[in-house]
Amino acid sequence: MKIPIEISARHVHLCPRDVEKLFGRGKRLTSQTPISQTGQFLSRERVTLRTTNSEFANVGIVGPERRETQVELAATDARRLGVAAPVRESGHLTGTPGITITGPKGSVKITHGVILSKRHIHASKKDAKRHGLRHGQLVSVSIKGERAVTFHNVIVRVHESFHWRLHLDTDEANAAGLTGNEKGDVIV
Amino acid sequence: MKIPIEISARHVHLCPRDVEKLFGRGKRLTSQTPISQTGQFLSRERVTLRTTNSEFANVGIVGPERRETQVELAATDARRLGVAAPVRESGHLTGTPGITITGPKGSVKITHGVILSKRHIHASKKDAKRHGLRHGQLVSVSIKGERAVTFHNVIVRVHESFHWRLHLDTDEANAAGLTGNEKGDVIV
Repeated sequence: MKIPIEISARHVHLCPRDVEKLFGRGKRLTSQTPISQTGQFLSRERVTLRTTNSEFANVGIVGPERRETQVELAATDARRLGVAAPVRESGHLTGTPGITITGPKGSVKITHGVILSKRHIHASKKDAKRHGLRHGQLVSVSIKGERAVTFHNVIVRVHESFHWRLHLDTDEANAAGLTGNEKGDVIV
Repeated sequence: MKIPIEISARHVHLCPRDVEKLFGRGKRLTSQTPISQTGQFLSRERVTLRTTNSEFANVGIVGPERRETQVELAATDARRLGVAAPVRESGHLTGTPGITITGPKGSVKITHGVILSKRHIHASKKDAKRHGLRHGQLVSVSIKGERAVTFHNVIVRVHESFHWRLHLDTDEANAAGLTGNEKGDVIV
């Protein structure tokens, strides 16, 4: 079964309290571009991620606000920052390292929340039913081309608001020679 | 068949003329650390790679000198530098982009030579015979673990001086969750 691939560059999710600390009292994230998953958007606002080793400026924020602040890096980024970020599913932040996030009105030093995103498939309940997949299932995805790759241990996440997509980080996309808009084949 | 994996960070190879331009008249590269392929070494000398977009300082040089200067980047690096480097075998430099290389005694602006290294296996003639592989053959290599991956289109390079190794760049290693010293399984 074919699946469209989306490449996630390093980005952050912010809780409402951290949005206020970074952008000012009473502020909310504002949408610059909707993204494929319903209701989510790349915000106009940007932050800087900083460690004693290095920093990344102009890092995107995916809104709307979430319950907990989370930073998603590629392993290349984590190495440059000197952060030992583990591979995790979104929201599974126990025991992950922290980082300093800076915006125009202030900084927050999170004590945990920095992860390498575990590669995953978004599927609606309808998609899951059609393809015989279940929430939490691990599948492989095969990608053709000069740098053909099969990614294993891809986790399926099912939610009625989801759209049928494979999400990879920039290291994974580069290893597969992807630039965006390619498709993969899901292998169960 | 099991194969040890080595991860190549961005590095350059230099022709004798460029070594003199970068490090001074009569200079030769000097070995800091021998690397796995016979006679090759990571040199004590370092260079800076620079474009109008960005730069990387302290880039390693793999010696000894070669016939033609060559720069091997990960796709993450190439994107940051704004260089449209294609996936190529080492030494296949026709039509590749150039870059500015700077050393302590001068700079060279190469007109071509920047590549993303095509993932490859080094095999001695004995290795090749033992495993039934031939020079130029494309195989797959499967890697276990949390970020398990199968890399396809891995080219086999056979030379009597070679040692049995899979060479991946840092994007590929990161996509597979590798940190060094792991092994893969070659699938013919």
